[in-house]
Amino acid sequence: MRMEVIAVGTELLLGQIANTNAQWISRELAHYGANIYHHSVVGDNLTRVVESFEQAKQRSDVVIVTGGLGPTEDDLTREAACEVLQDELIEHEPTMNKIAHFYKKNDHQMTENNRKQSHVLKKAKVLENSEGMAPGQIVEANDATFIFLPGVPAEMKSLMNDFVFTYLTEKYQLETKIKSEMLRFIGIGESTLEEKLKDLIAQQTNPTIAPLAGEGDVAIRLTASGKHPERKIANMKTSILERVGHYYFGSDSITIEEAVQDLLVQKSLTIGSAESLTGGKFIERVIRLTGASSICQGGLVAYTPDAKQRVIQVPEEIITRHGTISSECAEEMAIQAQKLLHVDISISFTGVAGPSSSEGHEPGLVYIGIKANDAPAEVIQCYFDGSRDKIRQRTVTKGFELLFHKLNL
Amino acid sequence: MRMEVIAVGTELLLGQIANTNAQWISRELAHYGANIYHHSVVGDNLTRVVESFEQAKQRSDVVIVTGGLGPTEDDLTREAACEVLQDELIEHEPTMNKIAHFYKKNDHQMTENNRKQSHVLKKAKVLENSEGMAPGQIVEANDATFIFLPGVPAEMKSLMNDFVFTYLTEKYQLETKIKSEMLRFIGIGESTLEEKLKDLIAQQTNPTIAPLAGEGDVAIRLTASGKHPERKIANMKTSILERVGHYYFGSDSITIEEAVQDLLVQKSLTIGSAESLTGGKFIERVIRLTGASSICQGGLVAYTPDAKQRVIQVPEEIITRHGTISSECAEEMAIQAQKLLHVDISISFTGVAGPSSSEGHEPGLVYIGIKANDAPAEVIQCYFDGSRDKIRQRTVTKGFELLFHKLNL
Repeated sequence: MRMEVIAVGTELLLGQIANTNAQWISRELAHYGANIYHHSVVGDNLTRVVESFEQAKQRSDVVIVTGGLGPTEDDLTREAACEVLQDELIEHEPTMNKIAHFYKKNDHQMTENNRKQSHVLKKAKVLENSEGMAPGQIVEANDATFIFLPGVPAEMKSLMNDFVFTYLTEKYQLETKIKSEMLRFIGIGESTLEEKLKDLIAQQTNPTIAPLAGEGDVAIRLTASGKHPERKIANMKTSILERVGHYYFGSDSITIEEAVQDLLVQKSLTIGSAESLTGGKFIERVIRLTGASSICQGGLVAYTPDAKQRVIQVPEEIITRHGTISSECAEEMAIQAQKLLHVDISISFTGVAGPSSSEGHEPGLVYIGIKANDAPAEVIQCYFDGSRDKIRQRTVTKGFELLFHKLNL
Repeated sequence: MRMEVIAVGTELLLGQIANTNAQWISRELAHYGANIYHHSVVGDNLTRVVESFEQAKQRSDVVIVTGGLGPTEDDLTREAACEVLQDELIEHEPTMNKIAHFYKKNDHQMTENNRKQSHVLKKAKVLENSEGMAPGQIVEANDATFIFLPGVPAEMKSLMNDFVFTYLTEKYQLETKIKSEMLRFIGIGESTLEEKLKDLIAQQTNPTIAPLAGEGDVAIRLTASGKHPERKIANMKTSILERVGHYYFGSDSITIEEAVQDLLVQKSLTIGSAESLTGGKFIERVIRLTGASSICQGGLVAYTPDAKQRVIQVPEEIITRHGTISSECAEEMAIQAQKLLHVDISISFTGVAGPSSSEGHEPGLVYIGIKANDAPAEVIQCYFDGSRDKIRQRTVTKGFELLFHKLNL
């Protein structure tokens, strides 16, 4: 089964938006093993839209068209479809009622062009659009099946989810279902991870094993097809975690801060921070999560040496003797934060974000302190590459990594 | 002059990435008034790449091709180009030297397939790639000019900037230069802004005036073409700012936090925050900026009532009597933060981010306090719609808006 995706809209050819609709449709259909051979974009011009539909009809079995179903003059998908599929437009009554009802409810005058959105091809199977006005349409012609969807991503996605995936899988018996799971690791480099799984990767067939480097973490995507893909994935996951389970913090869309939050909740522990170069970025990532109040008291952000004394109560002597970018300062920041915030675990960040040096240290030098319960504070020294933004992000991610491994014992 | 953009790469048809190259090229060329009629994506399959080049040769004057110039077996753009343009490949010596040098420097063995990246069409004008290995190529055939560029966005962009824009503007006398400026406003709604500029918008021709709603701010894009577009924009900008200049905080890519930072620097003032629901997001957006140390001491993040007493020293009595989500608590937070952080201006945030209610208040209720120098603290009450994330973002943006208008007198 040969498929293609056509997007209709001049805004795409002007570069105002990227064709993310084609990406989304392709990625989702890839799970079913569908073969998409072409993406194309054509502007709001009847001749060119007709040409691109004609070409698609020749070369593909299924053509998914997004866009050009709106109420204005330059929405031409319906007209082009009639020409190519030798059909005519009729008014779809349920849609017309929906449009009229909408205008009545909002006390607006319905203009004549709004009627256009209720027009469908006579031969079309009409798909109700729960997110907007213009319905989707499926037209089964002799050469090819055309599926017309609105260009607004939310509307396109809801129609794909509500009708199109089912239609395609049933009609074309797309059985080779593909399942995948993304295993997420932290504290291990991509090359070390690959080294440890070398033989598994060499033998991979089904599931396939694809290592992917992220920002501060590493992931492995397992993709299985055929019968019982879940079972194949589960078995491979077990083999992998036997070797590198220590670094695994969760699957799919989980973030390292969520993994840390889960552990804090499980262990009924609270956390707080004392931050210099990260400027509140750590505590912000904690408080961003729903349920933060059960694990988090708050944080102290002290960007200047003066604020470190005043806010975090780092003794002046430590700053004079060791500077604020020092293991000693990080240690003291963690100790004081635990006391001041009244938390079980505190974490501190001090270092040089750049772009210029500070206290004679180059950008990228960072100290992270952790004080957990009654144990003495621990400090680690790190070097991070990159821009000011990257150094600050990597510092915070490293903080979550250290906390995860401390809590996950 | 009819143009089109073809992207070669199966990763696009699998939906692993969106075709942002076509978007970028189109947006940049739109400034020169170029007409792009088609975007298409084709996978790494020789027959289909040849077909798409053939079609483009028929219908377009200029064809920009991205991707398929790498070293591996499935990089087929060169081979397809030879077939369609009846040409042959030769080794480009400077590129070959560059590749060999790279491998030598990094002490790696160069594999035979790396040689492939130095192959170019005999008729091609070769464009040196300052960001990577494979050079760009321009081939002027009878029917159409083909421009071949690597698919890696940074390499594609550098070749466009270094050679292709100049080549196209010279060859096709693309004179109708378009200039645009984005005027950014805060503290005024999109509809009020439109109302105040109604007659200007009604008369618009050149420059055009397009209002755009953003997240917390509103922008107007002025786009002028023809001779002296800068002058046309400057004149219209003056007319617009005469009416709504109070809300204008800068142009193009400036953010509201940068505008606030500029004002603080100008006035030699320092700032600090006391944050509850925003969790450090305000101070993080200040410290993120280069040069933060000259304007910012730090911040206090207190998420729980206990932390508000302990860290920000809000008197227990205020919390018992008014709750933490109150004008009184916001006021006290601002007052204490100014003292504790030793800053000229302090700002406080307390409210309900959701998803559940807190102290009997619905998500979205927020108090923002500001204490500037010796003036009494001011508190404003706001309601924000949306998810936890949105409420927290809107709160912080509102804070910057209040500071901007306070400082910009």
